[in-house]
Amino acid sequence: MNNRMVFYILGRIVFSIGAVMLLPLTCAIIYGESLLPFLIPLGLCLLLGFFLSFKKPQNTKLSARDGFVSVGIAWIVISLFGCLPYIISGAIPNFIDAFFEAVSGFSTTGATVLADIEAQDKSILLWRCFTQWLGGMGVLVFLLAILPKSDNTSSRYMHLMKAEVPGPTVDKLVARISDTARVLYGIYILLTAIEFVLLLFGEMNAFEALSHAISTAGTGGFGVKNDSFASYSAYSQYVVSVFMLLFGVNLSLFFLFVTGHILRVLKSEELWVYIGIVGLSTVAIAITIFSSTSGIEETFRTSLFQVAAIISTTGFVSADFEQWSGFAWLIFLLLMFCGGCAGSTAGGMKVSRLLLLFKNGKRQVKYIQHPRSVLSVKLDGKTVDHETIRGTTSYVIMLVAIFIVSALVVIAIEGCDLVTGISSVATCLNNVGPGLGEVGPTDNFLFLNPITKLILCFDMLAGRLELFPMLILFSPSTWKKFA
Amino acid sequence: MNNRMVFYILGRIVFSIGAVMLLPLTCAIIYGESLLPFLIPLGLCLLLGFFLSFKKPQNTKLSARDGFVSVGIAWIVISLFGCLPYIISGAIPNFIDAFFEAVSGFSTTGATVLADIEAQDKSILLWRCFTQWLGGMGVLVFLLAILPKSDNTSSRYMHLMKAEVPGPTVDKLVARISDTARVLYGIYILLTAIEFVLLLFGEMNAFEALSHAISTAGTGGFGVKNDSFASYSAYSQYVVSVFMLLFGVNLSLFFLFVTGHILRVLKSEELWVYIGIVGLSTVAIAITIFSSTSGIEETFRTSLFQVAAIISTTGFVSADFEQWSGFAWLIFLLLMFCGGCAGSTAGGMKVSRLLLLFKNGKRQVKYIQHPRSVLSVKLDGKTVDHETIRGTTSYVIMLVAIFIVSALVVIAIEGCDLVTGISSVATCLNNVGPGLGEVGPTDNFLFLNPITKLILCFDMLAGRLELFPMLILFSPSTWKKFA
Repeated sequence: MNNRMVFYILGRIVFSIGAVMLLPLTCAIIYGESLLPFLIPLGLCLLLGFFLSFKKPQNTKLSARDGFVSVGIAWIVISLFGCLPYIISGAIPNFIDAFFEAVSGFSTTGATVLADIEAQDKSILLWRCFTQWLGGMGVLVFLLAILPKSDNTSSRYMHLMKAEVPGPTVDKLVARISDTARVLYGIYILLTAIEFVLLLFGEMNAFEALSHAISTAGTGGFGVKNDSFASYSAYSQYVVSVFMLLFGVNLSLFFLFVTGHILRVLKSEELWVYIGIVGLSTVAIAITIFSSTSGIEETFRTSLFQVAAIISTTGFVSADFEQWSGFAWLIFLLLMFCGGCAGSTAGGMKVSRLLLLFKNGKRQVKYIQHPRSVLSVKLDGKTVDHETIRGTTSYVIMLVAIFIVSALVVIAIEGCDLVTGISSVATCLNNVGPGLGEVGPTDNFLFLNPITKLILCFDMLAGRLELFPMLILFSPSTWKKFA
Repeated sequence: MNNRMVFYILGRIVFSIGAVMLLPLTCAIIYGESLLPFLIPLGLCLLLGFFLSFKKPQNTKLSARDGFVSVGIAWIVISLFGCLPYIISGAIPNFIDAFFEAVSGFSTTGATVLADIEAQDKSILLWRCFTQWLGGMGVLVFLLAILPKSDNTSSRYMHLMKAEVPGPTVDKLVARISDTARVLYGIYILLTAIEFVLLLFGEMNAFEALSHAISTAGTGGFGVKNDSFASYSAYSQYVVSVFMLLFGVNLSLFFLFVTGHILRVLKSEELWVYIGIVGLSTVAIAITIFSSTSGIEETFRTSLFQVAAIISTTGFVSADFEQWSGFAWLIFLLLMFCGGCAGSTAGGMKVSRLLLLFKNGKRQVKYIQHPRSVLSVKLDGKTVDHETIRGTTSYVIMLVAIFIVSALVVIAIEGCDLVTGISSVATCLNNVGPGLGEVGPTDNFLFLNPITKLILCFDMLAGRLELFPMLILFSPSTWKKFA
């Protein structure tokens, strides 16, 4: 392992986390709130970051393992610094609770330990939402975006980006990886800004609009109200529904769209399947809740909002869906595992993986009938190579394995019912936010045992980083060879 | 498709089903019960079977697809004839209910629509248990076992056996496939006989001992008492526990054992993992139920019995485990999907598949760190080829897909809770028997909608035949090319 390079990267990340605290600090100044919760960690981060990345190492080589380990450590470190404002402000005095909230933010999960959200300082609420915006695109992608153009080692960072960007493949949109990161960030900022402006046309003030826009963009789900979105107008709910769905789409497609490659966008199989799943689920949920709502418009809006919130893994809540039928519960659990498209800020398995699994299954049924024929799996007209298929199936099976082991331990520790146990793990592992049972849309995660919270933290980070960085970080063999 | 050969095979199977009805017929004679429920289908089967397989076709070639399609049709046909005794005797007058009971029997599931089991004729109860004994080893394997030695086309039946015998691989124990089938049947009969004798030493009469022995052997779970095993003595419960576990072991290992290859038996990784899972689950369940039972012996016996009943997918019940904790429920759901060893009569995914998945996952974590190295997966010291891995992962993912789709439809039709919905499908798909919620150990499946019952019939057969025969049978492309 190239320790010096790993520390150098960590230093730059810690420095960046300090720098981005200027936003909530500004908010605290505007609203006359306490500045210390941000000033102290800001100072700490800048100092430590400067110290760690003061001198660039001679050897900037990063192996694949170095990349994964760096990413895994980086996300734990940013959560450690990111939870300081909660502790110092007294919003969440307990360390493990504050760490849970920070991990939930950066991993764009949106599961909270706060019972009374409206009682908190605005700067604290903004910081909560902002962690999701940062976590949505990836902290290292952010680093890549701000790398100097002259940095000729940027191709080395491909490993980092692979470890942080969701989905089976990372395509370089433009020749240089740092330019790709910049283009993606540009789209991300633009979409967030459009949502912000649209929300201002509704009943929200600038603070609410900004908080919700950045929370939607990261598909996080932290809000500023105790009832999430239930008391907002139909207009705001529609705007957020549409943007939740948009942020569940591969950001590269927006790049292709604005650069005039509309045909290539329309040829994306993943996009169509995603639209199909959203449409079918919305109709199915609408049918089951029709009798309990007042009219078709409310039925459609509530169904669309909740389906968009779950499949994009944002996790905003506009109705207490725990009161809905077992059928709706199952659909939500499935949508949690499905998630949005690859290359979006959404969590879950990603639609393209499901598509690959389905095609591979069809291929297997054919293969077993004609064992001597050569059969390939194609996506968007291109043959998918054998290692990608193997990687995808392995990924899904490992996700299920982590889900099962976590659920077993959580249920054993909590002594809770099956639905609470599996939904709390499912919602964290897939970065959604609310679950069912005791962790339903009107509950929070505060009552859980500290060990349960740490397991869920692992699940949230494993889900956000698509398993491997956390698996490699916590695998004994990584540290055996460290010496 | 070689239609004439498919019909020829079907004819021999129908003939065999008629022949095996001599057993319950004898029972009916002994106990002076009505003979018609068996005489009518017996006559029908012998006549139709004779008519279909009167003349052996010239072309005895069977393609892989022909094999799968034959197996799929055969199991539906035997269930259709197998349900006639229930209808004619009036035990289960409704056709779909009777078909469900027959499919549940042949697929060795043991889910029942009978509310009052003790009120039935002994010959009917014996037939229920006997279908499980036949289904456990496979009806076509039975056919292979009784093929004349001179039949030089028996190697053609390999496809049939592959489609019917559980697990990722079929090994020929001895040179000829029909001899292999005979050896396996010999072991099967011997083990059943030993259990029968041991049960006679307890409080059971010959009828009870025989019924339970054949039901255990097929890992079915139909009993002759309303409370399954709850009122039997500790001795009988221990005997059945041990035999449920034994019938969950690869039958080939018994062959190796009696032929003196004990070292090869001890080297079976699957066997050790199976023992490990049983041990760990028994301890885990024992800890959670200790406070509600009277003493260590009862705790251990109840826990062992229920773990053995679920992992072997037999589904006997010695305690109302629905009263146990959510933790126990989750363990049971996982054990259902796990199932016994490959080459046993148990259902579920099989331990060897789980082992392959785990090893493949470890390989993937290594591969992602060292993308250029060549890494293989080994089982019992032998390298597992890439197509077996691909087949195993595809199988598991298709099993989950069938589980999810079935659960969605069942919950939508029944309007039931999540636990009832997923456990009824899980218990049928894995050929276990009792579920949780409204289909728990003290309930039955009678109240379900007929469409739900047909879906569960599909799941039971798909689970028993390891998906592909049913998937191919119900895939439109199979019938497109039929013309």
